[in-house]
Amino acid sequence: MDLRALVFDVFGTVVDWRSGVAREVARLLPDVADPLAVADDWRGRYQPSMQQVRSGRRDWVNLDVLHRESLDVLLAERGLDAPADVRAELVLAWHRLDPWPDAVEGLTRLRRRFVIGPLSNGGVALLVNMAKRAGLPWDVVLGAEVARHYKPDPQAYDSAPALLGLRPEQVGMVAAHTDDLVAARGRGLATYYVHRPDEFGDRTRTPAADPDAELSVSSFTELADRLGC
Amino acid sequence: MDLRALVFDVFGTVVDWRSGVAREVARLLPDVADPLAVADDWRGRYQPSMQQVRSGRRDWVNLDVLHRESLDVLLAERGLDAPADVRAELVLAWHRLDPWPDAVEGLTRLRRRFVIGPLSNGGVALLVNMAKRAGLPWDVVLGAEVARHYKPDPQAYDSAPALLGLRPEQVGMVAAHTDDLVAARGRGLATYYVHRPDEFGDRTRTPAADPDAELSVSSFTELADRLGC
Repeated sequence: MDLRALVFDVFGTVVDWRSGVAREVARLLPDVADPLAVADDWRGRYQPSMQQVRSGRRDWVNLDVLHRESLDVLLAERGLDAPADVRAELVLAWHRLDPWPDAVEGLTRLRRRFVIGPLSNGGVALLVNMAKRAGLPWDVVLGAEVARHYKPDPQAYDSAPALLGLRPEQVGMVAAHTDDLVAARGRGLATYYVHRPDEFGDRTRTPAADPDAELSVSSFTELADRLGC
Repeated sequence: MDLRALVFDVFGTVVDWRSGVAREVARLLPDVADPLAVADDWRGRYQPSMQQVRSGRRDWVNLDVLHRESLDVLLAERGLDAPADVRAELVLAWHRLDPWPDAVEGLTRLRRRFVIGPLSNGGVALLVNMAKRAGLPWDVVLGAEVARHYKPDPQAYDSAPALLGLRPEQVGMVAAHTDDLVAARGRGLATYYVHRPDEFGDRTRTPAADPDAELSVSSFTELADRLGC
């Protein structure tokens, strides 16, 4: 093991998207009765929206563009209306998500020994704004917009070792989703699973461990402990 | 003025490439009589090497590749020899440059108010390794390797507002070289000149000010003062 860098999935792994999006929905669309249901609905449109780009049916657009399009359809389907400036502000909900309680401390410790950065499907502006607001101490911002490919396209994972000047096995992917880790292993990255039982409304959706990962942990501070940081 | 981000030229603006490269040349090639002359010679091959990529005569390669090629020619022309591992280590001299004395304090203050990042012709690994070693507190690492275009190609400058989700005039380019600022202004960025009289062996090469810049300063701490940070 010559691990040199750790790259992180963000939505669900570093930050709690569900409560953060619901908070902004409640603030900006006060007539909505169940903001968590809107957050779940919006998130449910995430994979299909990216699939348009992954498949080549449309040119590259970043996640802010996809989030806005999904929101417009969601509002129409739910019979809701909102002016353009409110819709733009709602898209920025995804830039203003709170980290899980262990995230900042864990990242701060991991950063002492490793290069750390997000490898997210979120865009660069989203990740930078989120990090400034939440105090996430990234060394570098990687991800889909830099690679111009959404995970789990192989190019998204390959971009991390390529840009960091490392071999794939020197880079560890940290995620709360086993499909992300399967794809990362397929490109030669080391993988680390973090159990985030509160990501979804349904705790049965999150397995306690990924038996194929190097480590399965329940927090970034535990990851720092296990990696000797 | 609605300045939101500052992006920085690095070689000569943030760090002192000449003394840093000479230090590593002296360490790794102890037979060289004048390490500063080797540093100047190596740097002299920088613009012509990038021109091969800018012109489209060769595909994208990052600066580590160009530095290695320039080094090989330089050593041959000077009748010097070195094994491959020493040449590889010499290329990493450019990852290990020291910041000017005001740089870390100035960046730390500027970061409170602005998104800050390098917009350098150096590659991502070079910039990340340099930042970890020197304590440069970047929010994001931008530049030629992310844009896949070397400055002064317009795409290099355009990449900063595009990736940060800002308008060009909301991004300030900070550099010790007026040609870099001319090109940045041509793409609509605000520009800030920093006088670095010790970049070259010859102080007459560095003008005291750029009359077309928003501000001309002599340190990053002065820039922080002038921008109210």
